[in-house]
Amino acid sequence: MKLANYFPILDWGPKYRGETFANDMVAAVIVTIMLIPQSLAYALLAGLPPQVGLYASILPLFAYAIFGSARQLAVGPVAILSLMTAAAAGKIAAQGSAEYIEAALILAFLSGLILLVMGLFRMGFLANFLSHPVVSAFITASGIIIAASQLKHILGIDAGGHNLFEIVYALGTKITETNLPTLYIGGAALIFLFWVRGQFKPLLKKLGLGDKAATIIARAGPVFAVVAGILAVAAMRLDQQGVKILGDVPKNLPEIGLPSFAPDIWMQLLGSAALISLIGFVESVSVGQTLAAKKRDRIDPNQELIGLGAASLTAGVSSGYPVTGGLARSAVNFDAGAETPAAGAFTAVGIALATIFLTPYLFYLPQAVLAATIIVAVLSLVNIPEVIKVWKYSKSDFAAMIATIFMTLAFGVELGVTTGVVLSLLLHLYNTSRPHFALVGQVPGTHHFRNVNRHAVVTSDCALTIRIDESLYFANARFLEDTVYCMLGNRPDMKHLVLMCPAVNRIDASGLESLEAINHRLKDAGVTLHLSEVKGPVMDRLKKTHFLDELTGQVFMHQYEAMQALDGECVASAFDPGVQTTNPEASPCPSKRLAGLDPAK
Amino acid sequence: MKLANYFPILDWGPKYRGETFANDMVAAVIVTIMLIPQSLAYALLAGLPPQVGLYASILPLFAYAIFGSARQLAVGPVAILSLMTAAAAGKIAAQGSAEYIEAALILAFLSGLILLVMGLFRMGFLANFLSHPVVSAFITASGIIIAASQLKHILGIDAGGHNLFEIVYALGTKITETNLPTLYIGGAALIFLFWVRGQFKPLLKKLGLGDKAATIIARAGPVFAVVAGILAVAAMRLDQQGVKILGDVPKNLPEIGLPSFAPDIWMQLLGSAALISLIGFVESVSVGQTLAAKKRDRIDPNQELIGLGAASLTAGVSSGYPVTGGLARSAVNFDAGAETPAAGAFTAVGIALATIFLTPYLFYLPQAVLAATIIVAVLSLVNIPEVIKVWKYSKSDFAAMIATIFMTLAFGVELGVTTGVVLSLLLHLYNTSRPHFALVGQVPGTHHFRNVNRHAVVTSDCALTIRIDESLYFANARFLEDTVYCMLGNRPDMKHLVLMCPAVNRIDASGLESLEAINHRLKDAGVTLHLSEVKGPVMDRLKKTHFLDELTGQVFMHQYEAMQALDGECVASAFDPGVQTTNPEASPCPSKRLAGLDPAK
Repeated sequence: MKLANYFPILDWGPKYRGETFANDMVAAVIVTIMLIPQSLAYALLAGLPPQVGLYASILPLFAYAIFGSARQLAVGPVAILSLMTAAAAGKIAAQGSAEYIEAALILAFLSGLILLVMGLFRMGFLANFLSHPVVSAFITASGIIIAASQLKHILGIDAGGHNLFEIVYALGTKITETNLPTLYIGGAALIFLFWVRGQFKPLLKKLGLGDKAATIIARAGPVFAVVAGILAVAAMRLDQQGVKILGDVPKNLPEIGLPSFAPDIWMQLLGSAALISLIGFVESVSVGQTLAAKKRDRIDPNQELIGLGAASLTAGVSSGYPVTGGLARSAVNFDAGAETPAAGAFTAVGIALATIFLTPYLFYLPQAVLAATIIVAVLSLVNIPEVIKVWKYSKSDFAAMIATIFMTLAFGVELGVTTGVVLSLLLHLYNTSRPHFALVGQVPGTHHFRNVNRHAVVTSDCALTIRIDESLYFANARFLEDTVYCMLGNRPDMKHLVLMCPAVNRIDASGLESLEAINHRLKDAGVTLHLSEVKGPVMDRLKKTHFLDELTGQVFMHQYEAMQALDGECVASAFDPGVQTTNPEASPCPSKRLAGLDPAK
Repeated sequence: MKLANYFPILDWGPKYRGETFANDMVAAVIVTIMLIPQSLAYALLAGLPPQVGLYASILPLFAYAIFGSARQLAVGPVAILSLMTAAAAGKIAAQGSAEYIEAALILAFLSGLILLVMGLFRMGFLANFLSHPVVSAFITASGIIIAASQLKHILGIDAGGHNLFEIVYALGTKITETNLPTLYIGGAALIFLFWVRGQFKPLLKKLGLGDKAATIIARAGPVFAVVAGILAVAAMRLDQQGVKILGDVPKNLPEIGLPSFAPDIWMQLLGSAALISLIGFVESVSVGQTLAAKKRDRIDPNQELIGLGAASLTAGVSSGYPVTGGLARSAVNFDAGAETPAAGAFTAVGIALATIFLTPYLFYLPQAVLAATIIVAVLSLVNIPEVIKVWKYSKSDFAAMIATIFMTLAFGVELGVTTGVVLSLLLHLYNTSRPHFALVGQVPGTHHFRNVNRHAVVTSDCALTIRIDESLYFANARFLEDTVYCMLGNRPDMKHLVLMCPAVNRIDASGLESLEAINHRLKDAGVTLHLSEVKGPVMDRLKKTHFLDELTGQVFMHQYEAMQALDGECVASAFDPGVQTTNPEASPCPSKRLAGLDPAK
């Protein structure tokens, strides 16, 4: 419980040198240039005034520099949280109203508090319950929705909607109202930005630039688009022809103060704030881990909760909205050579200076150009190959993925991610509730025992072994009982049954109850029950009960020992499904997966 | 998909013989005598007029005789479902109103539909998610609440309440209003019934009766109490001294008709009906299985859903309320020699005759006697030793149990059982999200590998093996990554890492992602990753991916093979925590449970 555990700055601060400073400064300048259009664009996406995006990029970055553990993470507004903020605040008030802005502020404050509490109580593991496919599906679907929602700015029409279908419908019905000057500017920006993303870096490298420099300059594409857009509108006064511009952005620095406390509104926003916290945390930690791994470094997820919590809380008291670590921006920060979180603090200074001195020059910035930067950024989040990969690997994961995508597109981000999490948990529970059992035999010449249906193994008709491929808990305990009872009917020659437990990691009270019942029932039928390869932690628990006293057979350390001990009573014979000694009158067992136990077909 | 699968009567019906008929008739007469006071008492407990209890014991029994698969199960009103019906109907209307009776009818109808749908879609496995400790805790708590709620009838006071604390408080404040004649009758009945339960059977056996006959006559205790109660009240006209009596019970047979359809009320009752279905099903199946096991018979849980669904649906169209198989009654049916569900149909005829001819004689039946029969019956459901047993065995299960008991006592049956189910699922997920990992070594002289901390085993410093004691899925995939990365830092001599997978029953997409990341990271660090003892189904999945191509090491069939193959490069040495080759500077691993991986202390 060292202090530096909670203040990573105490760890890297004292070692700070001039060279580190120079590196951090260079990275900060580059990230600042990139962050200015981004913060304006994401504020637009969140339905907030442009300065809110700038404010969210000042003080929160200082807070993260003090409390954050990921060295190269660049914190600030991001696309997904902007979309989630718009959805949550939109439930409280209409976009553009003072209540809407206040709701975004409360969301940041609450989400900061939630992250801090989670961090202090070391609850980072909660994020593990957002499975990889669900997060990936959620981000893909959000990317699609965000891109679609920005098309109206490219077309210069007024077409909103709460889900993809509403957005597409509104675009379709209003497309005739397209403002051509807006479309020219927006379309040009889109084409330029896509070109920059794909072709600019190779071109720069051909022109002799190094890989790193080329990467960084290519990432600054949006800045060129912004400058060109401002010049075009100002020169031709396109704003008088219907091109929507950014207009006046206040030159003030953010006001400091707690958001207004209205218990009912806070309660209404609490669930949304929790989701924003979790999603922001998962996104940021995965970015942070990827970058840290490149430097053979590790980040502490629980400290990240505190760092991100401090950042969001600060956003909530300095006129901002929810922030987290962004992927593209952090990658630039990393490539530009940032070494410590101080780079973030320098970026904050840069944004503060921009807020004071640069905003007048942004007056003519066309919203269509900002929308184009958003579209190009979020389309890179859409990851269809991942969906195909998961489809091939696991149908359960794919089901959770498709449900998340569909629900996000059709009913919005909150219902989408909730559905994904709940469904993936339920599918996991369903899978473990119908475990795989295998009848096993000895692989000849080894001490190893494998599934009779997959390997050529030796078994005995009088001593059978079932390998249980799951922990025994309430959801599957009765399933084991049914299987054993069915086997009892189908294998009249059986004198010994060994339950082989290398995969049984836990036996809960319901599982114990079932084992006791099986032991009793087999005893009545003249069959001795044995266990083998029971793990230490499981055995410790069983020793606290009467089960081991009542067990009719033994507990063998190794399956091989079990077979040696029981072989005296049973003559081993090669397993041959053709000459089974099963009872052909018997009914099939409930576990279709339990090979070799069903009567001969 | 044979017809007899859905109509078990087609199975036993054609084999029906005179002898079976005689046995079923005897059992039916005995169960009828027992069921008359029970059905009146449980209707009283449910807040319904007495005849509703009788009606629920007529046609539903016919329905179960046709569709039920448990041969000796006696269906009808039971204590727990009566309590749940009172709680659910009480949310719709006040006890005694026509809407309240209608709500009970709708509950029976809906719960019948739910059970039928579950049965047709083979969803009996859902009941497995009610863990044994949760069901046991729920029944214990319900027994306590029911017993407490009946005390007012023994005291002859008007003291209600929605939870145990309200009930106890009301009893405390109103105890001065106790009606003494009621207390004398109720107290006498209680003492008599407790005596019957404990002492009557031994006495009967001493008088020369056989064990079975003694059991059955002892079970008829409530009938003696009822007769004595009626005679006492009628002789002394105690009803004029404040003793509440049953009064007029209509002599009609039940009216047939669908419950009135009001969508909003049906929606309000749907959740309660689902809970009633599940609890009734779990209770009944466990009774049915216990009795079937005594005859070496099995019941089909999915067919039971259909049988119980048909019974409840019939209750819902014949002026009844939710029914299920009862424990005490089924045991009597079994002991009395019932052989087929026809015994249930004969019981129904008996109750119908009683409704027509016997009800006038029940006019003076004191409610206090019915309350006494309920109290004695439900106190046998309270199972404190089970709570203690679970406490000793599993703290997780105990937590779910205590939460269920507390929530049921404090907030009622529905919140109680819901809390228990959700909590037991969450605790299970939490446990599997922090799996046990073990560093393993070879047990000398065998091919067997066990935990270095529990067994004297041989290990190598250059080829380490971690046994993963859990399926890899989203909730624990990152935990494995953290552990391996930490080990990488603490064990600089490591050249090979074997992940031993006999307990890995499933690897989902997130788990695959983590394995890929581990493989990459170890490769960068010059460590080769191997797998051993991967199960067939897991291997099949992995073969569909590129992981096996990218894996730097091999997949060994058996851990022994792995060590033989890697031994060429590594010199085996006895494991000794005192002379560890770990890096003492390294930080402790996140898994405190991963023995042998933390730096020397």
